[in-house]
Amino acid sequence: MAPHANADVEIEPVTDTSSVVVIGPVQTKTVHPQKITIDHVMHHRQTGTAVPNIVAAFASPNMFKSKAALGKPKAKKSFEHRLTEESKSRNPSSLKEAMKYYRAGTISLCGGLPSSEYFPFEEVSAKVPVAPAFAEADTATSGVTVSSGKYDTVRDGKSDLDLAIALNYGQAMGPGALIRFLTEHTEIVHDPPYSDWDICLTAGSTSALEIALRMFTGRSHYVITEEYTFSSAIETVVPLGAKMLGIKMDADGMLPGELDDVLSSWDENARRAPKPFLMYTVPTGQNPTASTQSLERRRQIYAVAEKHDLFILEDEPYYFLQMDPFVSGRTHTVPSPFKPAGVSDFLANLVPSYLSIDTSGRVLRMDSFSKIIAPGSRCGWVTGSPKVVERFMRHSEVSTQNPSGFAMVALHKLLDENWGHKGFLEWLMYIRAEYTRRRDIMVNACEEHLPTEVASWVAPKAGMFHWISVDLTKHPLYQAKGGNIDYATLLEIEEAVFVSAAEQGVLIARGSWFRAQRGTDTELFFRATFAAAPAEKIIEAIAKVGGALRKEFGLPQKQVQNGHAK
Amino acid sequence: MAPHANADVEIEPVTDTSSVVVIGPVQTKTVHPQKITIDHVMHHRQTGTAVPNIVAAFASPNMFKSKAALGKPKAKKSFEHRLTEESKSRNPSSLKEAMKYYRAGTISLCGGLPSSEYFPFEEVSAKVPVAPAFAEADTATSGVTVSSGKYDTVRDGKSDLDLAIALNYGQAMGPGALIRFLTEHTEIVHDPPYSDWDICLTAGSTSALEIALRMFTGRSHYVITEEYTFSSAIETVVPLGAKMLGIKMDADGMLPGELDDVLSSWDENARRAPKPFLMYTVPTGQNPTASTQSLERRRQIYAVAEKHDLFILEDEPYYFLQMDPFVSGRTHTVPSPFKPAGVSDFLANLVPSYLSIDTSGRVLRMDSFSKIIAPGSRCGWVTGSPKVVERFMRHSEVSTQNPSGFAMVALHKLLDENWGHKGFLEWLMYIRAEYTRRRDIMVNACEEHLPTEVASWVAPKAGMFHWISVDLTKHPLYQAKGGNIDYATLLEIEEAVFVSAAEQGVLIARGSWFRAQRGTDTELFFRATFAAAPAEKIIEAIAKVGGALRKEFGLPQKQVQNGHAK
Repeated sequence: MAPHANADVEIEPVTDTSSVVVIGPVQTKTVHPQKITIDHVMHHRQTGTAVPNIVAAFASPNMFKSKAALGKPKAKKSFEHRLTEESKSRNPSSLKEAMKYYRAGTISLCGGLPSSEYFPFEEVSAKVPVAPAFAEADTATSGVTVSSGKYDTVRDGKSDLDLAIALNYGQAMGPGALIRFLTEHTEIVHDPPYSDWDICLTAGSTSALEIALRMFTGRSHYVITEEYTFSSAIETVVPLGAKMLGIKMDADGMLPGELDDVLSSWDENARRAPKPFLMYTVPTGQNPTASTQSLERRRQIYAVAEKHDLFILEDEPYYFLQMDPFVSGRTHTVPSPFKPAGVSDFLANLVPSYLSIDTSGRVLRMDSFSKIIAPGSRCGWVTGSPKVVERFMRHSEVSTQNPSGFAMVALHKLLDENWGHKGFLEWLMYIRAEYTRRRDIMVNACEEHLPTEVASWVAPKAGMFHWISVDLTKHPLYQAKGGNIDYATLLEIEEAVFVSAAEQGVLIARGSWFRAQRGTDTELFFRATFAAAPAEKIIEAIAKVGGALRKEFGLPQKQVQNGHAK
Repeated sequence: MAPHANADVEIEPVTDTSSVVVIGPVQTKTVHPQKITIDHVMHHRQTGTAVPNIVAAFASPNMFKSKAALGKPKAKKSFEHRLTEESKSRNPSSLKEAMKYYRAGTISLCGGLPSSEYFPFEEVSAKVPVAPAFAEADTATSGVTVSSGKYDTVRDGKSDLDLAIALNYGQAMGPGALIRFLTEHTEIVHDPPYSDWDICLTAGSTSALEIALRMFTGRSHYVITEEYTFSSAIETVVPLGAKMLGIKMDADGMLPGELDDVLSSWDENARRAPKPFLMYTVPTGQNPTASTQSLERRRQIYAVAEKHDLFILEDEPYYFLQMDPFVSGRTHTVPSPFKPAGVSDFLANLVPSYLSIDTSGRVLRMDSFSKIIAPGSRCGWVTGSPKVVERFMRHSEVSTQNPSGFAMVALHKLLDENWGHKGFLEWLMYIRAEYTRRRDIMVNACEEHLPTEVASWVAPKAGMFHWISVDLTKHPLYQAKGGNIDYATLLEIEEAVFVSAAEQGVLIARGSWFRAQRGTDTELFFRATFAAAPAEKIIEAIAKVGGALRKEFGLPQKQVQNGHAK
């Protein structure tokens, strides 16, 4: 239950009914001299600062970083000059500020925190897999039940997080037990080049993106993004009175030269908008195009960001779903016989994040448990420079507050007390292999069933999406219109293919939904996900998409027998 | 596990891996002719529409209302004319709109919903009390374990909500199982006078309030509220560039005559703001004053709202914590030997809500599980007219999405499958009795330990807070200044009392933190909560507050022995 014994509690425990909120400087103890790695994370933890395990305790990554991390230079900039009036005008909560007067033994009649006596949950448990036997069938036979009692922390000393803490109000950054795990994870995976990075838990990246946009985007502003981008991000930006500015891209993502050109030649009068400074990007397995920026590309884009003083929102739900290359006709098995050989190899082969190359503090990285654990966790975290994360917390305090305690306890029990960092990375390797297998099934099905006279694609190297380009010039309407197709005609063709597939019982996503600047499409695309449907259904569905394309483009139908093209 | 057998599933179940989102008209079956009541809710349910139990299924209260509810006139107004540009400009998600093409058997490659195969939670369980043995000690002996498996719904037919649904993405309003429970609850408790009320789950009322404010409040607007109001609400309004407009109040809450006067005489030029139309109110156990509006007061305020076309945000976290009157020297026991005798009596004695008197659709009621189950649920719900709730959902889609699936499953298992409506109301009676006992302890302690020469109060009739008025004119500084005290001096005295109490180890909240219009205080108040600290600590703390007041007001200290004043 509690492999990480908490022998050195420095903050005196109090009962949870004292509505304690501790803000202020925290004593750190022994700090490990080297960067935290998988191999010595537990040693680092055992010799480091204990988790503050009282209700609504303040926690900070600085409590848990290695000496190596703390010894780096601070982030060069605060990015206060990029904040909106809304964000700048947020004040800390009066009630929480009062807590600087809190001392051990203080009785608080201040904050309206209900007594945990009245939480009608004495214990919650979950049946979960044990690393590395992750498949559903394995959980039935070899899974374990992890449990969290109401008073495991202070009264029973069994854990660093219990229901009395998780189910009460808390600080915006989240409970210390999760901040510690994520601090260790951040050093292990990203090792940011500056020392004062901070972390705040989020209610998922959809919520985090909305908060981040309100921190940096005013009405009439443009937000820089890829030419095609996550439709929900567009739908979040539009009501703010802002617009997306789509930058041309290839299979490696946004083109840095294009980005520099657009910014260097920005004419505020002609554009009727200030020069953009906020970038929203999904660097890995981009939604919808599956493009994945190489390290070289990331460095180039970061250099342009430095030149034009951009602030980067790095949205990385698919970061760990980086795949082995697709080989035609082959389907990867699970577990993969290919590399990575182990977690060290897995980590070494991940394209480095923007967070890991950011020296200025100009990146707010958004991580999420949605795609790697479950969307219903409604839990993620942001990592970035201290002032930016502090503003993010101030907004969280008056909106989401923090993720659900049920989710936080479940994640703590699974990730920290059951899997640990090594098991978590092995899990990520496992689902990466599963999604690779699904990617292979879909791309092989496309090779078999789609009319390559009109359809083409680059096999995804990451994520959950396959992006299919369809050659408009081969469509009868294009021919009829003498080589000129306007936007309305493009939409008409796109809709015809969509409806034709839907009538055969397959739903695919239309490329125009993802166009950063609506109405500027000149090419035809469709997005298909290999995340959701079972493998055999994927093949059947792609065959039907092939049929719809053939029908709409006036191509002869392929005869299909037993799910395979003849 | 599933007392409410789901024999009549009308929407064909599909595997959860098909990423289904069903939007559109829903067939209702037999509709019960009478309003839903505690006595026949289960009969109504068994003869009514089944819960749509597929991933991300659309649900609506209209599926579950009684014929009596559906037969009422519709809400008179839509309140579109009060929406901000931001709210009006929200469009439904492209991906979700596409789902109108979804038919039974359709394979969706459209939405990026991960397969539930990769959720590493096979089952979650919770140990919970059985009604009416609610105390912690009883749960240890007579509590039960409720469990939710991954495929209880479609594959095993055991429940209306399982992990495959709750842990995936869902619709903004929440899963059908919870919409059904809350629809029944709404008819049982509020029975709104119009037919087309809608419900959307929220990530708690702090989040709901922020969304509602963005729906109705522009920069430079005023938001009408009580003279003293929830500090977090003030802190949410300020960054929006808006201000609170505090209306004078008494122990029955906001004064309708004052409200009418302020609005009738509003001068847009002098005020440099449009005439206010949004009201934020906590009608029951108001934070911080504990004032509770009588039905008569609510009707008067509603009439003013009709006259000036106001929209009302009814924030009701403490609605069910309505108490028996305080009797000096007496402490209510738990369970209470006083009324209510049972759930019908309990319901009959609750002051009716604004929702229950609203014919125009001008009320958005915000309920929360925070104060009645646990804050860490981060789950609540809003109820209101259909256009308003629809706009709320559009915003939720690009921010919180919906509450955590872990919380939703826990609440469903506890409220629906274990307690049922009767058990839930019995639970509310139980915690109401517990908070009544705590209220009694605090008010009796105030009678014993506070200097009544300067301190006065009205015993709270609801909620979690006690509001203590302190007579500034008795302070030496007032005397020294010849009867004139400016704001700075008021703050100085307030801070001195606060710090003096803090130095003795007690934190209380300062009245000025809650002043709707900051800087306009003319009286001195302190707020003390009886929710958090254990009973004996409450008495000790109030004794120390008494000591601090005596010290600062130059009154002789009382001698205290064994926690009792001599």
